Order: sequence, then structure tokens, then C-alpha cells
Amino acid sequence: MRAIVKVMLKDGVLDPQGEAVRHALGALGFAGINGVRQGKLIELDLAEGATEAQVKEMCEKLLANTVIESYRIEMA
Amino acid sequence: MRAIVKVMLKDGVLDPQGEAVRHALGALGFAGINGVRQGKLIELDLAEGATEAQVKEMCEKLLANTVIESYRIEMA
Repeated sequence: MRAIVKVMLKDGVLDPQGEAVRHALGALGFAGINGVRQGKLIELDLAEGATEAQVKEMCEKLLANTVIESYRIEMA
Repeated sequence: MRAIVKVMLKDGVLDPQGEAVRHALGALGFAGINGVRQGKLIELDLAEGATEAQVKEMCEKLLANTVIESYRIEMA
């Protein structure tokens, strides 16, 4: 089974990577871009029977820095 | 309005970042992880009236390296 984890910087945390993308899009001529935030998308291919609780533990221990990042889990 | 762009390495393209995550999860004692792929999640805050075609152009020009990466757009 598959789990998808979305990790984003929390609101209020400066996102220099997203800011760089916003600036680059502006330089390419794209207008009307108010903001860009960039995060991580992690696809886990897990053995059958894996639970969301296990994936949550992976997030807390490794995948996200919960001081500055929030995460969402989707089991598929 | 908001657009969400998901950028992943294409199947068959080596993903050392995902492989490192898989290895680290194993070292932390998580079993049954067959594979990990890591991609980018880009949230764009756009002016009203922005179209998916414009976001597609941003992907082709900057957000994704279409030689090795595929992307999906969700308008929200």
C-alpha cells in the first residue's frame, strides 16, 4: 500500500526556497503571483497492513521537523 | 486563488533522496518499507483569474525539469 506525506513549512516560517521561486517566476514575466511556498512530497511504498499511526511515527521521527514544519498523511 | 503543483521524478529515474529516506527509516527500526520517492510540493498564491494553462507554462519553464520530472497541477 501507499502513503503520501505532504510536509510544508508552517505559516510564519520564512521560506527562502519559495521566495526564490516567486522571484524567478516574476523574472520570467509571470505576473500576479502573490506568494509561493515550497514543501516536500514523500511517497512511501509500504507493506500491506501498514497503518496511518506508523506513518505518523515516521513523520514525527524523521520526515518532518515538527518545530517548523507541518505534515499531512494520505493513505492510498 | 491557489494552485498546487506536485513535481515527482519520473519512474525509472534514480531518486537518491528517497533512497536515503528509505535507508534512514530502516535504521530507525521501521520495517516493510519497499520504496520511497521524494518530490516537491509547490503552493502558488495567484491573482484571481489565473488559469491552469498559465500554471502549466510555469511548470514547463521553471518548476519542473520535464526531462526527468513529471508534474501535476491542482487548482483550488
